[in-house]
Amino acid sequence: MDHPSIPDAKDKTLFTPGPLMTSRTVKQAMLRDLGSRDSEFIALVARVRSRLLEVAGTSKERGFEAVPMQGSGTFGVESVISSAIAPGGKLLVLVNGAYGERIVKMAAVHGIATTVLRTPENEPPDLAAVERALTADAGLTHVAVVHSETTAGIVNDVEAVGKLVRAAGRVLVVDAMSSFGAVALDLERAGVAFLVSSANKCIEGVPGFSFVLARRDELAKCAGRARTLSLDLHAQWKGLEEGGQFRFTPPTHALLAFDQALAELAAEGGVAGRGARYRQNHEALVRGMGALGFTPYVAAAHQGPIITTYRYPADPAFRFDAFYERLNDRGFVIYPGKLTREDCFRVGTIGRIFAPDVHALVLAVRETLVELGVAIPVRA
Amino acid sequence: MDHPSIPDAKDKTLFTPGPLMTSRTVKQAMLRDLGSRDSEFIALVARVRSRLLEVAGTSKERGFEAVPMQGSGTFGVESVISSAIAPGGKLLVLVNGAYGERIVKMAAVHGIATTVLRTPENEPPDLAAVERALTADAGLTHVAVVHSETTAGIVNDVEAVGKLVRAAGRVLVVDAMSSFGAVALDLERAGVAFLVSSANKCIEGVPGFSFVLARRDELAKCAGRARTLSLDLHAQWKGLEEGGQFRFTPPTHALLAFDQALAELAAEGGVAGRGARYRQNHEALVRGMGALGFTPYVAAAHQGPIITTYRYPADPAFRFDAFYERLNDRGFVIYPGKLTREDCFRVGTIGRIFAPDVHALVLAVRETLVELGVAIPVRA
Repeated sequence: MDHPSIPDAKDKTLFTPGPLMTSRTVKQAMLRDLGSRDSEFIALVARVRSRLLEVAGTSKERGFEAVPMQGSGTFGVESVISSAIAPGGKLLVLVNGAYGERIVKMAAVHGIATTVLRTPENEPPDLAAVERALTADAGLTHVAVVHSETTAGIVNDVEAVGKLVRAAGRVLVVDAMSSFGAVALDLERAGVAFLVSSANKCIEGVPGFSFVLARRDELAKCAGRARTLSLDLHAQWKGLEEGGQFRFTPPTHALLAFDQALAELAAEGGVAGRGARYRQNHEALVRGMGALGFTPYVAAAHQGPIITTYRYPADPAFRFDAFYERLNDRGFVIYPGKLTREDCFRVGTIGRIFAPDVHALVLAVRETLVELGVAIPVRA
Repeated sequence: MDHPSIPDAKDKTLFTPGPLMTSRTVKQAMLRDLGSRDSEFIALVARVRSRLLEVAGTSKERGFEAVPMQGSGTFGVESVISSAIAPGGKLLVLVNGAYGERIVKMAAVHGIATTVLRTPENEPPDLAAVERALTADAGLTHVAVVHSETTAGIVNDVEAVGKLVRAAGRVLVVDAMSSFGAVALDLERAGVAFLVSSANKCIEGVPGFSFVLARRDELAKCAGRARTLSLDLHAQWKGLEEGGQFRFTPPTHALLAFDQALAELAAEGGVAGRGARYRQNHEALVRGMGALGFTPYVAAAHQGPIITTYRYPADPAFRFDAFYERLNDRGFVIYPGKLTREDCFRVGTIGRIFAPDVHALVLAVRETLVELGVAIPVRA
């Protein structure tokens, strides 16, 4: 019998925003087959839901619910967009990257009216424009914003947006895909009604499901609003509440891994501990890349610790494909750029990686640039 | 650090229609973190897609495509229903169980007109009624049928349905969730346009995604028809064709497991070999349960090897909850019933289980019945 998946060598280190590196113990938790109706699995799902609220600094008692949803993070965001907005509702989307644009696209598919406020990919939302839009259009019922936009790596100030949304009496939806678990966000202070994240981002689980943290009163209003069967957030919640089970087959192995990942997050000191490691990773990257002449595309004031975008060097000897491939051959996987207007690449600093990994990457970047004949500025 | 997922004892054996038992090597294939844009992963996805067509006895050259879709099997079915039927189209659904009903529900959510032909849960579709419906209503564009209806365990004659659908020039959609990989179905002879199955059924992978096998000409017609973003089957296909990648984060670990599972399916002799083992499991079950006075709910002519439904014994000493729990305590997980009108339970005979496992289950059933004081007929 052939084993197509067993590699000859050590796996590469992923400097990507997910799928990302997970611990060996997280992966080992998947070496079991649990029945989805088994009491042990039902207890696991309940524990995961309750721990997610803990990670968010809230609880059922404080009026919040955690609802896992099969599929990638986009499936989770679409479950909110297609379940939360009533017919005739209208969504204001704050866009400064591809994930904001994706929400606009989702709304369009579902025939949901939108207003879009765009800012450049390295600039935060225009708060004055948000306020004006909410004042001018009483028909706007919901506002969506991305917390950590991995397009450029900006972290948007959700609390500031939330203050405006709350003052205007609208409902706030936050795509916190790549920030939840490492970048603190007080759901209550920020007035978040729905927050979406995914198993394989800062919690360091494996991909296979997303999850929605929602204010129970807003979740209850979703009854009968869903525009799909599979992504019906309210029905998913009710199923979990009533029998402890997913409505449709859950990714049992991914949930086993996630349960372990949540335990490891707690052991690392929760959001503060995890965030500190990612911040160290990011700082090691900025220092190391800085010495090679690279400056982050996003200004430090808005730059998050999740992913960092760098413009291509001006030296014409730089060819991204060769750069990527040679880093890859050395065992380092970086991420292509996604900016609308500029050539760039991205380096993620989340997942089971540490400052020494980042240091090793920077050394490999230097060596690769030398190989390619790209000029490196003389170090100060 | 606590390890909430590590059990004290050997895991239970699952006699369920999925999640089900998988081999140790399938699970071990998940002990890696692969980047979703990595060339190795892209090659893996291509290999999986091509092997799926092989399992179906067809190929790209013969005009078929394999499109994996994140989420459970239901997500895959909904991706077809919500992507394949044009506005103004109409779906004939042949229902003899809960999964047929689920397709009806999906169509309703998406505002797709339907005609429903129901037969009892232990009876096949009424072919004459199908023919009449197709003749009477020229507006019917698509026909949906479930191959193996796990509600009662019936295997529907998709080829016979397909002959009528083809003669009438309509498009056939088959939910082959729990049959694909073990119950042969000739896509071309049966005139199947779309077939949906899932990673954690007869291929014996882990749950996390489903897949659609589709005739390319019908798939191409889906462009612009999708009613969701995440479940857009055509866009998913195009993404895979153009860059080899999923549009949104794939469940990388579940795909690693699936790749291994496909290799193990081939090593077992493909659909014929796997089907033979399941048939042996099923026959061992029927023999053993027969000796305890149980008769399958579905007549042998329509009964498939996937899952078998048994009515509760008439003896009032039988209480299902106690029966289930005591079997569970002995390490055997069976499945509750799902019939509309009768009390029953189900036993799955698919997954990484063999006749000796079934034999052990039957012994445990006997012992449990004795404990509960349920009369067992004297053996012939």
